[in-house]
Amino acid sequence: MKQFERRRFLKQASLAAAAGGSALIAGCGSTQQPEGPSIRSSKTYEWKMVTTWPPHFPILGESADLVAKWIEEMSEGRLKIQVYGGGELIPPLEGFEAVSQGVAEMCHGAAYYWAGKAPATQFFSAVPFGMNSQQMNAWILSGGGLELWEELYAPFDLVPMPVGSTGFQMGGWFNKEINTVSDLKGLKMRIPGLGGKVIALAGGSAVLSAGGEIYTNLERGVIDATEWIGPYHDYLMGFYKAAKIYYYPGWHEPGTVTELIINKSAFEQLPRDLQQIVRSAAARSYSWTLSEFESKNNDYLQKLIQENNVRLEKFPDDVLKALRQYSQEVIDDVVSTDPMSKKVYESFSEFRKKVTGWADVSEKIYYTEISS
Amino acid sequence: MKQFERRRFLKQASLAAAAGGSALIAGCGSTQQPEGPSIRSSKTYEWKMVTTWPPHFPILGESADLVAKWIEEMSEGRLKIQVYGGGELIPPLEGFEAVSQGVAEMCHGAAYYWAGKAPATQFFSAVPFGMNSQQMNAWILSGGGLELWEELYAPFDLVPMPVGSTGFQMGGWFNKEINTVSDLKGLKMRIPGLGGKVIALAGGSAVLSAGGEIYTNLERGVIDATEWIGPYHDYLMGFYKAAKIYYYPGWHEPGTVTELIINKSAFEQLPRDLQQIVRSAAARSYSWTLSEFESKNNDYLQKLIQENNVRLEKFPDDVLKALRQYSQEVIDDVVSTDPMSKKVYESFSEFRKKVTGWADVSEKIYYTEISS
Repeated sequence: MKQFERRRFLKQASLAAAAGGSALIAGCGSTQQPEGPSIRSSKTYEWKMVTTWPPHFPILGESADLVAKWIEEMSEGRLKIQVYGGGELIPPLEGFEAVSQGVAEMCHGAAYYWAGKAPATQFFSAVPFGMNSQQMNAWILSGGGLELWEELYAPFDLVPMPVGSTGFQMGGWFNKEINTVSDLKGLKMRIPGLGGKVIALAGGSAVLSAGGEIYTNLERGVIDATEWIGPYHDYLMGFYKAAKIYYYPGWHEPGTVTELIINKSAFEQLPRDLQQIVRSAAARSYSWTLSEFESKNNDYLQKLIQENNVRLEKFPDDVLKALRQYSQEVIDDVVSTDPMSKKVYESFSEFRKKVTGWADVSEKIYYTEISS
Repeated sequence: MKQFERRRFLKQASLAAAAGGSALIAGCGSTQQPEGPSIRSSKTYEWKMVTTWPPHFPILGESADLVAKWIEEMSEGRLKIQVYGGGELIPPLEGFEAVSQGVAEMCHGAAYYWAGKAPATQFFSAVPFGMNSQQMNAWILSGGGLELWEELYAPFDLVPMPVGSTGFQMGGWFNKEINTVSDLKGLKMRIPGLGGKVIALAGGSAVLSAGGEIYTNLERGVIDATEWIGPYHDYLMGFYKAAKIYYYPGWHEPGTVTELIINKSAFEQLPRDLQQIVRSAAARSYSWTLSEFESKNNDYLQKLIQENNVRLEKFPDDVLKALRQYSQEVIDDVVSTDPMSKKVYESFSEFRKKVTGWADVSEKIYYTEISS
């Protein structure tokens, strides 16, 4: 049993009393057989889940819907969760505050959206040149990441847990070839988060556009480039129809983790069975989400290349080298000004160094020598 | 909603009636508040889970224990599962038969152990030069794999589901360097399954040794080589202490999936909430298991190299090329003699071809250019 599992076990044991309660009907005549159904009391909870995604957004919004469905089914309807797409109950990027204040009990999103609340949140979603999906999940579940994540969120009365991963994200769509670092100078690119700061260090400007405006901005030359997610979602956005577009593999989000945050006071009031049901639904969604991305990205990459003549390029080594160096500067800046970021990044980096040693004789060999 | 999810949903809806039952106490005086606890009837199930692993075997046996624990907690003890290590209730490799016959309701193991019952089972655990963990899970959950797996097991009155993955497995420990294909000739290697047939085609002999005998056989020269799992388990077996040992990355099990099989009649008699609890516990274990392997293999690879002077080698390209060709011959042989294997392998191969196209611009780029 892991350290954090053990701690959780002990914490939850003290709450377990609430889950019983068949004494309520003791002495009440019934048709029970000695080996037949016994009778339990139960309490029903009606919760709200806000999300950072448009309603039923492909894969990510579907994951939110599935988590709610699985929890309701597993709990026989004792924990009913109403899912709200971004903007339906509150604006999409106010989920952290809303769940912290108890306006909603849950938010389905990604931790880097809350960098303004606590910079260290970013290390739990995506770090430029950081870890991929399999490694992030290993760090979170088995490398001490979850304990740090819980420590970071506790002062906000929040409990975080991983609920999915997008897998490796693409580097974006550009209106010209990127042959040298100087091609990034003056580039207006729609790219949020740490990645955006890296582009700014490289002499470009990081522009924020709401999802619905990106295509038009790209087509009209308001922006020169944009990243989004991967082939499936990028295809749905139609970027391939904007003229002279070059498509590049990514560097800034190697395996973005999505998160479920829960109001801590509300979570601790749940009986232990419902707490475990929530944790299991989130973990099931993790596996489902990553599988959906792998499978759909597959199909849509082929559509883009074969049916839509998308020019798939690669960043030259020098460009990647420069982006890596700028990424480290951006991270160093976050870490040097925020003690919790320093603590989290130390754990992240140490795990990453070791897991890369193992990857060199396992997954790297797989992709370069076994699968090809 | 996926095709198989929808089918399952419809099937389970017809069983859902059994899950209700508060009418039993209608009219019985109680202290309930209008918004307070309601009362449900319940039925308790006591199940047996056999496993192919030694009791509490690191990660794999722990996964079996955790699945049972999570199910019991989520169900408030309504589904209690007693876990038996291999040999405790039945011999380790008789789980398929035992669950099919209802001697136990569940078995935690790996599908390739049942190749004697149905050769196609092998494609759901590990295929030489096949898919890795992330790709296997995507094929199973989102690429039609699970539907074929269910179809394969239904005639045996069994329901299968993935419950974990070992990640990439190592190629094994050798008492000499493998520089050319001819070094495999006459080699006595402990290696089961399809990998063993490949070694035989290469002119070696595939030897079966029970786990407890491998070290002694290797040390005494009864065998020249052995594979096991990866750095963590290999370290625990102490292979590095046998003289003149060279350690090679793998090719025969790029991402072995472990499985939970359930007696289908027993599963269909469960109310829908318990069915969903079982499915969620298995999925949670999938994520946990792979994370544990990633994390532990990390730590123990460094121990092997830094503290125990293990010589980490690599198979030369020519050797891998020959092993790949022999692997295809072994697979073609299975597929040509068993129609269900043909059907499963066609789905496997088609998905693999597409996912490799996506991997070439995502995970392969990650391991070769982003993480290094």
